[in-house]
This record gives sequence, C-alpha cells and structure tokens, in this order.
Amino acid sequence: MSLGITYTKSGRALGAGLAMLLGSVAAPAFAEEPTLSEEAFEASKQLYFEQCAGCHGVLRKGATGKNLEPYWKKTAADGTVTEGGTLKLGQERLEKIIAWGTEGGMNNFSDIMTEQEIKDMATYIMMEPPKPPEMSLAQMKETRKVYVEEEDYPTEPLHGRNWENFFVVIERDVGKVAVIDGDTKEVLAHIPTGYAVHVLKASEHHKLEEPENPGRFWYTMGRDGKMTKIDLWQTPDKMLVAEVKIAYDARDVAVSGDGKYVIGGGYWPPHFAIVDAKTMEPLKVVSTRGTNVDGEYVEESRVAAIYTTPNEPTWIVAVKELGQLWQVDYTDLDNLRIDKINSAKFLHDGFFDPTGRYFQIAANASNKMVVVDTETHKLEAMIDTAALPHPGPGANWVDPNCGPVAGTTHLGVGTVTVWGNDPEGHPDQAWKICYETETDGPGLFVRTHPNSKYVWADQTKHPEPEVQQSVQVIDKETGEIVKTIQITEDEGNAAVHFEFNKDGTEVWVSKWNLKDSKEPNGQIVIFDAETLEEIGRIDGLYAPTGKFNVYNRSNHVT
Amino acid sequence: MSLGITYTKSGRALGAGLAMLLGSVAAPAFAEEPTLSEEAFEASKQLYFEQCAGCHGVLRKGATGKNLEPYWKKTAADGTVTEGGTLKLGQERLEKIIAWGTEGGMNNFSDIMTEQEIKDMATYIMMEPPKPPEMSLAQMKETRKVYVEEEDYPTEPLHGRNWENFFVVIERDVGKVAVIDGDTKEVLAHIPTGYAVHVLKASEHHKLEEPENPGRFWYTMGRDGKMTKIDLWQTPDKMLVAEVKIAYDARDVAVSGDGKYVIGGGYWPPHFAIVDAKTMEPLKVVSTRGTNVDGEYVEESRVAAIYTTPNEPTWIVAVKELGQLWQVDYTDLDNLRIDKINSAKFLHDGFFDPTGRYFQIAANASNKMVVVDTETHKLEAMIDTAALPHPGPGANWVDPNCGPVAGTTHLGVGTVTVWGNDPEGHPDQAWKICYETETDGPGLFVRTHPNSKYVWADQTKHPEPEVQQSVQVIDKETGEIVKTIQITEDEGNAAVHFEFNKDGTEVWVSKWNLKDSKEPNGQIVIFDAETLEEIGRIDGLYAPTGKFNVYNRSNHVT
Repeated sequence: MSLGITYTKSGRALGAGLAMLLGSVAAPAFAEEPTLSEEAFEASKQLYFEQCAGCHGVLRKGATGKNLEPYWKKTAADGTVTEGGTLKLGQERLEKIIAWGTEGGMNNFSDIMTEQEIKDMATYIMMEPPKPPEMSLAQMKETRKVYVEEEDYPTEPLHGRNWENFFVVIERDVGKVAVIDGDTKEVLAHIPTGYAVHVLKASEHHKLEEPENPGRFWYTMGRDGKMTKIDLWQTPDKMLVAEVKIAYDARDVAVSGDGKYVIGGGYWPPHFAIVDAKTMEPLKVVSTRGTNVDGEYVEESRVAAIYTTPNEPTWIVAVKELGQLWQVDYTDLDNLRIDKINSAKFLHDGFFDPTGRYFQIAANASNKMVVVDTETHKLEAMIDTAALPHPGPGANWVDPNCGPVAGTTHLGVGTVTVWGNDPEGHPDQAWKICYETETDGPGLFVRTHPNSKYVWADQTKHPEPEVQQSVQVIDKETGEIVKTIQITEDEGNAAVHFEFNKDGTEVWVSKWNLKDSKEPNGQIVIFDAETLEEIGRIDGLYAPTGKFNVYNRSNHVT
Repeated sequence: MSLGITYTKSGRALGAGLAMLLGSVAAPAFAEEPTLSEEAFEASKQLYFEQCAGCHGVLRKGATGKNLEPYWKKTAADGTVTEGGTLKLGQERLEKIIAWGTEGGMNNFSDIMTEQEIKDMATYIMMEPPKPPEMSLAQMKETRKVYVEEEDYPTEPLHGRNWENFFVVIERDVGKVAVIDGDTKEVLAHIPTGYAVHVLKASEHHKLEEPENPGRFWYTMGRDGKMTKIDLWQTPDKMLVAEVKIAYDARDVAVSGDGKYVIGGGYWPPHFAIVDAKTMEPLKVVSTRGTNVDGEYVEESRVAAIYTTPNEPTWIVAVKELGQLWQVDYTDLDNLRIDKINSAKFLHDGFFDPTGRYFQIAANASNKMVVVDTETHKLEAMIDTAALPHPGPGANWVDPNCGPVAGTTHLGVGTVTVWGNDPEGHPDQAWKICYETETDGPGLFVRTHPNSKYVWADQTKHPEPEVQQSVQVIDKETGEIVKTIQITEDEGNAAVHFEFNKDGTEVWVSKWNLKDSKEPNGQIVIFDAETLEEIGRIDGLYAPTGKFNVYNRSNHVT
C-alpha cells in the first residue's frame, strides 16, 4: 500500500551526489558541478557567515535578502510555478551582483571582498548550503567563565562616579564595549565581549517586581553568540564579571523584569536560551523552529530581537522568519508559557510606547510596524509604513495634533513615519499615520528625549558620503526638519545612532569609522540638545555604533 | 577571525558522498558503502515506514526503540564518549536482530518480512536515513474532500437507532472503522478511513462550552495522516462526510471542547494541525520540533497523543521525544497560547481522572506515569511504575483503602500498577502507588466502568499464544485476579482492548486476527460484566482492535 509519502530528491545538477548518499546508485558527480578546494570552501563559508548570512540566512532560504539556494521551485496559491536559484544565475552574473550590489537593496561588496573572494563566493553559493551544528544546553554550560565571583561583587559603586549617567558604547569591529562617564566624558574601559555586539541590555525598573539596582548590570550579545555580564559598580578593570556562549550566531539579549534571568536569542541554532542572571549558568533552551504565518515550516527561524515587557512578567521574542512574536512568561521555566502572536514577516527591531503596554516592532520586509498588546498577549495593530522600517531604540513624543506618537526611520527610503500610539486617550489617531517627514536618505535610527523639542534621525544607509555623514533634526511641534548636521567629512566614516544623556540636555552621535574599523579613529560627537550646537568630541573609540545611557535605558526613557 | 562555528562533516564511511555534496572533492564513494538497487531502497523505505518508524523514528534517532543511525557518538555529562551505529553492528548481526528480535523488547520480524526483505532492511538501515518532505497548510488544503455538504446534514438521527450505544471499532489493516449497534449487535457499516487508524475521538461534553450533540461526530486519524469525519446521525452509507490529510505519518486526533475545531498530530512532519470541525478546512499548523527536557534539539519530536481537557478550553498535546506536554489554548488561533510542561521521555498515551482536572499519561521509556494539572497548566506529579506503562484509555475506580485510584498495564511486564489520584480528598495517597497486581503477561489496555466491580487487563504483548489470547479480570475490592478468560484458541489471533457498553453491563473484547488480517475473520467477544460469562460474538470484522462506545467516550466514562 502506498502511503503517499515521497522523499525529496534533488532536482538539480547536484542530485547525483545526493542520490549516492541515498544509496540508490554510485554514479559519479556531474562534470559541471561547481567545486572549490577545501580551503576556499572553508574561507567562503566563514566569509558568507560574516557578510551574507544576516540577510540571506545560513541555509540561504532568504529573509531580508533573497533566497540563495542552488535551485528552488515555488508554487503560488493560484498554481503558478516559478523556479530559480543561483545555479540558474551562474558564476558570472553572481560575481557581478556580489561586486556591484543591486537596486533591490543589496550592498556592493567590491570594497569589502577581494576579487578572488568574490569569485569563490559566487561558486560557494551555487553549492549546497552546509548546515551548521546544533548547540545543546550541556554544550552551553561548558562555555561559561566567571571572572568575578558573586561573593566578591561590591555592595556600592567602587569608583565614586555618577554611574547612572554612564554610557555603554558598542565598539563593533573589535569585539568590545566602551564605558564612558557621561559627566566627565572620560573613556573608563574597553571591555572585551563577543564579536560585533549587536545590542546590550541592562536590568530595568519593572512594574511588578523591581530588580536589584536597575541599570547596574549590563548584558551584551555578540554576533558569535557570546553573552557577557558587566558590573558598572566595579572598578573599570574588573567590570567584566562573567560570560557564556549560547549560539554560533546571535543578535539580541534581554533581562527579566525581576532581574533574575537573562535571555539570549540565536540566529543559529534558531533558539533562545534562558540563563541565570547572577551566575550566567544556562538553565533552559527553547527552539524557535516553527511554522510561519503562511503555514509553512521554517527551519531557520531566527530570533531577531528580545525585549523585557515593562508591565508583565514576560519577554517578547521576535521570531523573524515566522512573522511571530512569542510572548514568553518567565515565572515558571519548567512549565513555560508562550503566546505565539501572528503578525508579519520579517520581524526586526522595536520599542515600547511610554506606558510600557504596547510593543511596536518593524516587520521590515512587509513594510509594516506591528503593535502587540503585552497586557492581553495579542496583536493590537499593523501599520503600513514606507519601505523597510527600522526604528532601532525608537522614539515616542507628543504631537500637537495627534497626541502621543511614535516614529521610525527606514532602511529603504529617506522617510520618518510618525503614528499615534495612545488608544486610550486618542483612539481616533491610534495606530494611524499622523504624518511622514522626508529626510535626505534612508537611515537606521531615530531618537528623542521627553525634555527635548527635537527628534533626531540618521541617514547611514544613503550611498553618498555627504548624506551618510549627516543627521537631521526634526521639530516635534511642526514635524519639519530644522537642521542638517554633517558629523564628519572624513572618508570612510558615517554618522550613526543617537543617545541622550540622563537629563536630556545632550545628544551623542557616533562618528563610525567603517574604514580602518579596528583602529581607535572613531568618535562620539556631542551636541547641546537645545541649541543643536556641537559641544565636543570623545576620541579614541573603535568603530563606535550603538550607545546606551544607563539611566535612560533602565527607566524606559524613549 | 574564527567565530567558533564548525559545520558537521560526516565522520563515517559515507562521508565521501557528503563531502562531494559539500563540493570539496569529487572523490568516488567508498567501495564498502552499503548499497541497494533503487527498487530495493524504495521498498525498504516503505517497509521501514510501516514496521520500524513508529519505535525508531524516520530519522532513526530512536525513541521507544534504539537509535538506528549508521554512526552515532554521544558524550555523557561526565565526559565519557560512547560510539555506535548500524555500520558497526554490520549486515549479519542486523539481519539476526530483525529476524529474531531482542530481549530489550524488539519484536521478531521473521514472520512479517521475507528473508530478502530482512536482508535489504539490514542494508537500508546502514545507509543514511532519507528525510521525508515537509507539508504546508496550503498542501493540506488541497487534500480536503467533502462527501456530504454541511447543509445536507440531518437535523435528527435518520436511522431511528439508539446511537448513543453505538460502538465505533477500528478495523486496523483494511483502513476502515466499523459502526456497530450496541443494542442489536448489528454491524451497520465499514467506513473507509486512513490506513491503520490509531485512534478516533468524538465531540465530548465540556464544562465550559458544550458542543452541539456530543458524541454525534467522530474524527479518525489514520497512520497515513488522513483524518476523516463521521456523522452517526446519517444512514450508514453516508456516514463518511469529509476528509483531509494533515501529515504523512500520524497517530492522534481530538476535538475542541466547544466542538468547533479538530486537531490532528503528526509523526512526520512533526507538527499539529488545527482544522475546522464543520468543514474539515485546515486552519493552522504548528511545528512541534523543539528542545527536549535535557536541553537538546530534536528534529523528529512527534505528536504521540492529543486530548481535549474536559474543564479548560485547551488540548493536551504529548510531544513524545521532547518529554513535554503542550497545553494548547484554542480560544484564539492567531495568538496561540501554549504551555510547554516538562515531564519525561518518551510520552505515549493517557487519560483523565474522574474530575477531568488531572491528566495521567505514560512516559513509557522512563517507566513513569506523568500527571498534569490542567487547571494550573503545570506538572503535578511523576509516578514510578513497572517497565513501559501503557494505559490506553485507562481506568479509574475507587479502592477501599486508597480512595479514588487509576491503573495502567505495561508493555514490558505483566503488571497492573494502581495509584491514588484524588489529591483533594486523599492527599496522602495521591500520586503514590496503592498496589500492583501481577498478571500473566505484558499488555496494552486496562479498562473498567463505574457500574462494574471489575477491572479488565489484556496481555497482548506476551509471546505465548495462550497468554496473548487471554485477558484477566481484577476485583476492585481486593486487587486480586478473579478470572482468566481465553478469548480464542485460533492460531494467529490475539485478545486485545476492552470497551463497556453504555450501561456498563457488557464488556466487549476484540479477537484480533493478526494473521490474514485483511480478511473478515476477526470478532468481538461480549461478556456479561457482572457474571463474567460470555454472552455472544460479533463476526465479520477485519482485524478489530480499539472500540469506542459513543456514550462512554463523550461522557468521560473511564
């Protein structure tokens, strides 16, 4: 009796190899198979991981970027079949795309990879994607290192500084974070972390159960899955207190509201790990492989971002490829409650409204901002935006016409989109576009402060150096751009990311040295938040990007 | 910079084929590679799926049965490394194991497979396991067939029979279920279903929201993933009203308490699908791939069983290899709440206590009964039992010493284990062994009825025909066996499974014709539940196994 079960056999040129694995025939590989030496294969695999996997995925099924499998075939709802793949595009066309980029948003890599690397990469992506290994809880436990024992933690700050106005700054390409005294502008430490830290999070004030000393402990997540714990009460040479690796590829981290757990999200393996916030001992792993909003199984369904909900004992885990936000209740790890909230693909980064109830996140490939009600654990709204919204830490303020609003920049276009976000006080404006402001170019970050009259937006994704090096300042009253500020004219440097100081009187902008990024040629440029005049610069930073003010981040000042 | 990412390459003899796929070399396959002709490979794959995959898994990582991968390597918590695999065992040893079975519980297949099939199977399992395809929501939708439109459903029973005392009987090897009038003992219909139906479920009375006409609609799940909907109010020729396929390999199905949804659980793909109970239109798929209770990712984490919770708007989904019970809230499919309750491996089948609050399920490879509190959505207890508990539909009764108790048979040993299950009224006895009764042999099912003085246990797993053909009756007052009844002496026939009629005055036992199982040589043997004397036999059944009385099953009579 046939049970209707059929096993996939490759329909492409590499099929012979697979058929051999399946043992049916011992045919030789086809002559036209793309091949690389083992050395070139390994080098390409590593380069692909560093430069390509973020957008295309290690299994190359695509996300923000296109599918890069050797061969793919899709059947649409109406029965239309489309085929494609890197084998069809071929070596020459692939080399051109890699070198020059595309209008669809692909960067040009001609200045990042050598000619030979581009050639090999074109070949590599015509070959079957190798699948990286899994990582078990036991394996994670073996990676834990403690630099300062818990009993040696200080009971008060050892440096006598105003640590609530410290800034922790990502030094992207050297795998460090800098700690800067926001009062004196001194760089206190360059703390070793994982590679290319994407984000770091502190313990925050919480409505239900306050953590001990909010803002004291910071947790970083490297792109290599290494999480480190930083204690800002220590003397600068001892601030790194512990570390653990929870994935091979990762992006985000968050602390539970009670400060007891840290959660790290993996790109590969696609999972999240819950770690004891005191000891950094891994406690639990949860796979995020799942079925997406279209009802299709996704093997590489990655954790794009994780946030602590300020009013509930939960985290929001954004599972990028599923288009789902998983609200994870951390009150009982052995009976773990997860609400899988359907929204849209592909989820990226987000921020809360000022009440802490609504979480606003970009589904950037769907050109939407998604809003989750963390009180009901349900989808609240989806807002159509311009192309590829990317709010970063986001911005909330009060608009004279719409009441409370929030805004986002976009990766795809020079637009700041602003929507109402107060369904209780302003139901007619809630989750509707209030206005859009055109900027000079697409950017990554938007930011403001309750004490400031202005909203700042960067333009880091614009190809022209002059625009990339400039940020724009929007007046909250009018929604108009009141000033464009060129941070630098140095070749190979861009302006990126904003953070206010504790009082909201200063705005810190990164002068990001993309070129020679492992040298301390980056700066932080500080502006008077009222006059918009430059106050000064902090030198000696290695590729500074994201900045996190202790007070603002642990008090939900966005 | 090395990011610590390493990709698995096969460390075994088949590595050359894999290396070729990875494109590093174009070496020929090793001469000693096990090979089969394409025809023999396909035949073995199909036979493996039918006979072996249930215990060993399609990916052969093992569950109730052992790991059957060509090569495996394990590192224990203390660092000890063990290696093994079918390649190490070799052709000859594998053939012997398949033919003769093992003391560990593996059946002998010498009378099920031919000598050539055994030879090929030994080779097949030394080869890399082929991975079956996924199945999307869109693919499921294409398989739906409607035989009776909803507007043509009758508004009252069309046959004038006492349908609440109907029995629905699985006719395992012909892919049918029989409908039998429990009053007249007439076989009304043999309804085509999926292959080898494992279980079927009806709409049941529910504490929160009563379904329309509990017990009227029955939903079957075939081993081939085909779900069918049966309407007992129809004339027998029209009882099959709709069908849909939700997996390639599956075991269980359940109806939501409100009767609005049906959920089907897949072995492959490892997922569950929620279907509109009226139209059989698939609505949602949820992958059950996940991280097990030991913190390891499991690709083949199968849905062993699904149950509707009588007091909550949820289902219990037993994810076998994860050792987790997922309590799935069906009140909002777009914001799906799942509580992932950690328990023990490998979960199999279970039943509720009489209050409907506590769910008791076998983790049979751990020799435990697991108890979940469906009110709190948390693990309540784990009870150590004899080897491989298997309660089937289970049995609850009142013991003179322990108060309310439940019991299970075991696959591994001739024992009925009885435990207290009334934590409110008898906290000292709750979830503790009350007593154990030794039977003549290991069995599959235990059953009783509130109106009966006896508990019945089968011994289907015993190798001796005489024991296999006998069932034993235990007195609820004494816990002693009061009678052993040999159902049949026919060669190739076994006694299996019990069901009481609506009033609890009759016990129905299957005479299961394992031999010539596609012929109508099976019987149901009916006993007086009070005198334990045989009343009569129903002939003309094809391999009858499980039996489901409409009233008992829709009124939680266990």
